[in-house]
Order: sequence, then structure tokens, then C-alpha cells
Amino acid sequence: MVNVAVMGHGVVGSGVVEVLENHRESIAKRAKEEINIRYILDIRDFPDSPYAEKFTKSFDDILNDSEVKVVAEVMGGLNPAYDFTKKCLLAGKSVVTSNKELVAEKGAELLQIAKDKNVNYLFEASVGGGIPIIRPMSQCLAANEVVEVAGILNGTTNFILTKMIKDNMSFEDALKMAQELGYAERNPAADVEGHDACRKIAILASLAYGKHIYPNLVHTQGITKITLEDVAYASSWGGVIKLIGQVKRLNDGRIDITVEPMFIEASSQLAGVDDVFNGILVRGDATGDVVFYGKGAGKLPTASAVVADIIDCVKHLKARKYLYWSDGDESLVKPYSETEYPVYFRVEGKERKTTLDAVLKLFPDARIIVRANAPENEIAFVHGSMPVYKQEEASDELKQLGVTVKSKIRISDL
Amino acid sequence: MVNVAVMGHGVVGSGVVEVLENHRESIAKRAKEEINIRYILDIRDFPDSPYAEKFTKSFDDILNDSEVKVVAEVMGGLNPAYDFTKKCLLAGKSVVTSNKELVAEKGAELLQIAKDKNVNYLFEASVGGGIPIIRPMSQCLAANEVVEVAGILNGTTNFILTKMIKDNMSFEDALKMAQELGYAERNPAADVEGHDACRKIAILASLAYGKHIYPNLVHTQGITKITLEDVAYASSWGGVIKLIGQVKRLNDGRIDITVEPMFIEASSQLAGVDDVFNGILVRGDATGDVVFYGKGAGKLPTASAVVADIIDCVKHLKARKYLYWSDGDESLVKPYSETEYPVYFRVEGKERKTTLDAVLKLFPDARIIVRANAPENEIAFVHGSMPVYKQEEASDELKQLGVTVKSKIRISDL
Repeated sequence: MVNVAVMGHGVVGSGVVEVLENHRESIAKRAKEEINIRYILDIRDFPDSPYAEKFTKSFDDILNDSEVKVVAEVMGGLNPAYDFTKKCLLAGKSVVTSNKELVAEKGAELLQIAKDKNVNYLFEASVGGGIPIIRPMSQCLAANEVVEVAGILNGTTNFILTKMIKDNMSFEDALKMAQELGYAERNPAADVEGHDACRKIAILASLAYGKHIYPNLVHTQGITKITLEDVAYASSWGGVIKLIGQVKRLNDGRIDITVEPMFIEASSQLAGVDDVFNGILVRGDATGDVVFYGKGAGKLPTASAVVADIIDCVKHLKARKYLYWSDGDESLVKPYSETEYPVYFRVEGKERKTTLDAVLKLFPDARIIVRANAPENEIAFVHGSMPVYKQEEASDELKQLGVTVKSKIRISDL
Repeated sequence: MVNVAVMGHGVVGSGVVEVLENHRESIAKRAKEEINIRYILDIRDFPDSPYAEKFTKSFDDILNDSEVKVVAEVMGGLNPAYDFTKKCLLAGKSVVTSNKELVAEKGAELLQIAKDKNVNYLFEASVGGGIPIIRPMSQCLAANEVVEVAGILNGTTNFILTKMIKDNMSFEDALKMAQELGYAERNPAADVEGHDACRKIAILASLAYGKHIYPNLVHTQGITKITLEDVAYASSWGGVIKLIGQVKRLNDGRIDITVEPMFIEASSQLAGVDDVFNGILVRGDATGDVVFYGKGAGKLPTASAVVADIIDCVKHLKARKYLYWSDGDESLVKPYSETEYPVYFRVEGKERKTTLDAVLKLFPDARIIVRANAPENEIAFVHGSMPVYKQEEASDELKQLGVTVKSKIRISDL
């Protein structure tokens, strides 16, 4: 029998306890050991829980119990999760987590401690909820160079965009609906500003390239500025707008990594990923494109991913899984202003003729696109690949000609 | 250093050698051991190969070399692969394979020998080529009950159907094109009659339910009878025709398992899986639907899956992976004639009035669907869920009323 502790009894934490108890037998069979929850850590009281006697408010109970071999950290947030995780690993306990913020910020350090102590630090649940992605990608890496990873990594923003695209709902109304349905939090910034997707692509990039890519190195833009006008233009262009986290390996050894809304062609595999679903594309030099699709969040999917990691730790108490990356720095990432991509612009001027003249002066190759009921002074166009700093220079010059850039959205090559 | 042997130097086998050699360093890092190819078994001569000195025509060289710890069987076919695999496992060597026929026919026996000998028998490459599916499903099973697996498991038939759907090409022309492009073999029966998909769903079902489901227990129907008329009716119904391998767990503990063409709604995740791509949906009680998508065949994708298994064996030379099912028999499978599903019929009678009367007499709830340029005496309809034996009884009665059933296709609930 192996004793484990679960730190945090929120949505995911209570799901982990539920899965461990409800699948006790099949889990014992797969882990080749019975798994016993010895402690559940939470500062709150749960007097009515069937596991009331397992609760503790003291982290030291877990840390000092040498019989606890595996700890599930499902508290979320940086602190005290960081401190607790570090202490557990240093004490020779394996740790599994769904905490994407912690992995994205402190992964390299924690993986190094795990390596030194010959224990495991696993985090399948930190990206994609119940979609297996960390483990398949890690396996895939053995015989592949991962050229690119791109995905719809946040269910909340994908739900909002889907409502905007399919039901012509405004961003505000769609957000409100997402909050009512429990998909978005009262303070939705982490989702709609792209921070959640940023942490996830940072984790996938670190895994793919073996160096820690910190979230603050990722150019991150959310969906708060996307309007129904842009949605209509995307449709007339032949696609949809999705919030994409993307990382590509460049020829110079650096990477291009961003989270931003993008125009995606309707025929792309990711264009059909709707509602709260996630879709993640991994492009390997040998496997080609492999896409993983499923619900990226939720109590039981995430909990079952945490439990799969617990089982893996129990099976590998004396052997480490290969899951590791070393520290990294900003020299790995190409500055956003130097990246190049095709782009969509929506601009407004005083009246049509002068606006069009200004656009064609600065973007001679602009391809104009149209939408129904557009005001006469609005012009939208797409342009071939162009470095970001040039896009910005051109935007500034447009302004001097009396034309305001209302939207500028990357066109994806997915 | 660990010595391995590669049995078979065809498309996949030569790919395995290529991947092992080209990724030597990164593989050594992940496997924590250098991997050395000691033998390549093939009856043909390859005098110009850079690995010419590794070739042997004698299986005994491999079997009797106690330093060969892992053998990749990429010969395909039942014999002599079955004999060779059994002997290697009995000799305490781990075996990895892409051979779906062998795993589908002899999996339970070979897994039992592997278990007894404390070695591994791994077969990630047998289903889905480079798409990771065996390993994620196996992990997923730890904390989930797999309720259903359904997928487009054969790229050749999917290519043919895509050409019929998108380019209005006849089955014969599309098959010819597939042959010219190298997607279909000169004798295409294994693909177009559904045998290849049958082996793959049998493997996935065995893994999901822990009992060997033999291919001859799977009702298997190919795509040779699908016509452009059916494709047009599927489109007017709101979907497409796909060849689906599907297994579902029933309440009585048995399973419903089939390979057959099905009507799939256009909104289904599998409807957009086109050309030579595969898509596999795994429905778990905790994770919900997870879909895996990618190229299901090809030299390098398949080879890289074989190599990932080799690495796994090298890392687990002293520990077994949990991958096992026990023997099974026909009592596990609900007879096809008793299964129930909604269904599409295309019938032809002498003239419209009597044909319609006959249809409505036998199928009072029939919902008629139409297509452009249908002959006056052709009627197509869909009907709600109905046991197969009743569908067949009704077909017989139609015949007695002078109406011939030209097509009958299952309507999927995917």
C-alpha cells in the first residue's frame, strides 16, 4: 500500500479524492499497489465529508510523514503551492499537479529538485484538462523533432468566441453568459486577457524545446478587443477568429511564441474546435500533424489526469520518468516586433475615397474584404507576411493620414 | 548500451533503422542508454545499405544472442511473425511491433507470455500509425471506464470516401487514384473490405475491456457497395458517409462492436476527418470525449511510434508496463442481428406510388429524403432505431412487394 496526500479540496481536489475512492480496485490493479489517501490538506472545514478524518490544516503533517510517498498539489496559485511543492520534493516525495501557474513559473527549478532527489514531478493535468498531451508529447519527442505546437488552450475564451461567431452575440453578452454557466470567473481577466493560455503554451514550449520559457517572454494578447465586425470579416475572408497559443522553432534556433487571436481558415482542423473544447496540434518532423481534442477543463477530466499521474508515480517510486527541462532566458525567444506574419486590418477614415487611398499608399498589396452593412468609411483588408514593427510603422503613418486602425489580427498559417 | 534487432526491412522496418540512427543522441538521452542495432533480419539482400554488415537471414542469430534485449517485429502478416515473436518473448526479450494482424489475432497469448517472462510486448504503432493512442488509452483507463471507442481507422478508405464526397468521383475511380498515389495496394481487399479497420478496433476493444476480442467476432462491412447516390442522400440528410470502427459497452456487460460505413452528422468531430487522416474518439466516464487525429500510416510516423516503444522497453528492461488483456470469447459480443440503430434505406420499385406505399406500410415512421435527379422509382428514407433482424425482415417483405433494397446504411450517434 502506498500513502498519498491531496493538498487542496476545491473543485479538482475533491474530484481527485472521488476518483481515487470510486476506482480503488482498478487503480490498485494498474498501480500494482493499493493507493491510500492519508491526508487531505485544506484550511476550510469539511465536517460532513465521508473522509472527514483525513483532513488536516497543517502542511507539516504531510511533510513530516515519511510514509507519504506521493503528494497531489491541486491548490492552484503560486503561493503557498510553490513552497509546499519544493519542500515535498526536497523531502523525497513525488509531486503531481494541475497547477499550470506554478509549472509555468517555477517548472525548471522544481524539475531540477525532482531530478536531484530522484523523484517525479508530473503535471499532465496542467494543460488540456483530461486530454492527454504532456505524456504523448514527451513520448513523441523521443523520435521526433517538434517543429511547432499550436492550440486552442482555453475553453472559456473559446466558448465566448463561438457565441460571437455562431450566435452573433457581443463579447460582453457572451462573457456574461459564460459567467452564468460557470465557465468564466467573476474576475475573468486570467481567461479573457490570455494569461491562462499563455501559461499553457509556455509549459508545452518548455517541454518541446527542453528549456524553460517563462510566461513573461510570451507576447500575450486576449480577446477583449475582438468585435462582431472582425468576426464578420473573418467569415467573409473564409474562416473564424480563435485565440491561439503557438510556438514554432525557427531556423536560427530561437522560437517564435505568442498567444493572440488569429484568423484561422475554415478548413483547418482547429477551426472546428468550438465551445469549451480545446484542440492542440503537435507538428513533429516524423509524425506530421497530430491533433488532440477534448474538454480542456472540468472537475472529473482534470482529476482523472491528476490520478493518472499519481498512478505513474506509484509505479515509478524507484525510477524517474523522463520529464525535464533546464532553465532558459529571453535569448531563446525572438522579439515579437521582429516576427512576421500575414495580417488583417480594419480601419476607419473620414470618408471612403481618402481612406482607400491611404490604405493603398501604405499597403499596395492589400486585398480588400467586405461585410454586409459596413459603414462607408470603414475598410478592411488582408496583407501578406510583414514584420510586426513594419505593421506598426504603417499603422502610425495611417494615423497621420487621418485613418485609424480599429483592429489588427494575425492571420494564421495553421 | 542496449542491443536491439529489427525484423523486417520493408517500409516501416527501414524507417525504424533510419529514426534510430538519425536521432541517436536524443534517443540515448531519453532511453538513458545508447541503443545499438545489432541485427536487421530480412530474406532479401541490401548490399548498398550503409548498415549492410548488420543484415542477417537467420532468425536464430537474433534468438540465440542473449545480448539482444529488445526486438522490433515489423515484418507484418501472421507467419512467421507469430512464431518469431513467441520465441523472442519466451527467450526473455521484449518485443515491439506495428503488426496489427498479429496483435489482433494472437494478442492475449503473446501478452500472457510477456507477463510470465516479465518482459514487454508493446504495439503503439499497430493502430493509428504515428498518432499516440494505445498509451494514452491505457493511461486513461486507470481512472476512467471507457464507455465507447469509435474511429476512422483506415486512411485508404477515408481517402476514397473523401474523393466520392468532395469530387463526386465513383468508388472505382477513387480506388484507382488511391492506387496510383500509393495509398492503396494492388489487391485492396484488406482496406476496402474493412479488414484492416476491423483488426484495429479489435485491438482497441481488447485494451478497453481487458478481454481479447477476436476479429472474427466483429461484424465487418467495407465500402465497396457505397455509391454516389448514397453520398448524395447523406449530404441531403446533413452529413457524410464514413467507414467507422466502433465499440460500445452495453448495460448487460457485453459489447457492441462493428466496422461498417455510417451516416455521420456534419457537426460531428469525425465528419471533418478527411483524406488519408485517421480520427479516433475515446469516450471515458470521467474525461468525456477525447479525440486523437493525425496521419494513420506512413513510413516515418509509424516508425517513430515503433521507436518510442523500443525506448520504453529499454527504460523498463526490469519492469513491465501495464499493457495486458486476458483471453476472450464470443459471449462478450452481442450478436450483430440483435443490435439496434437508426438506419438509412435506398429502395427501388416499379413506379413511385406503389414503392412509396410499400415503404410506408413496412416503415410507418420513415422520413423521406431527396436528392437531385433521382429516378422517379427511387425512394430513400431514414428510420429511427430498429434491431438489425427487423431491418432484414422488413427488407424481405419489401422484396415480396416488388421493392428492392439497393442500400442500407447505419446512422451513427457520434
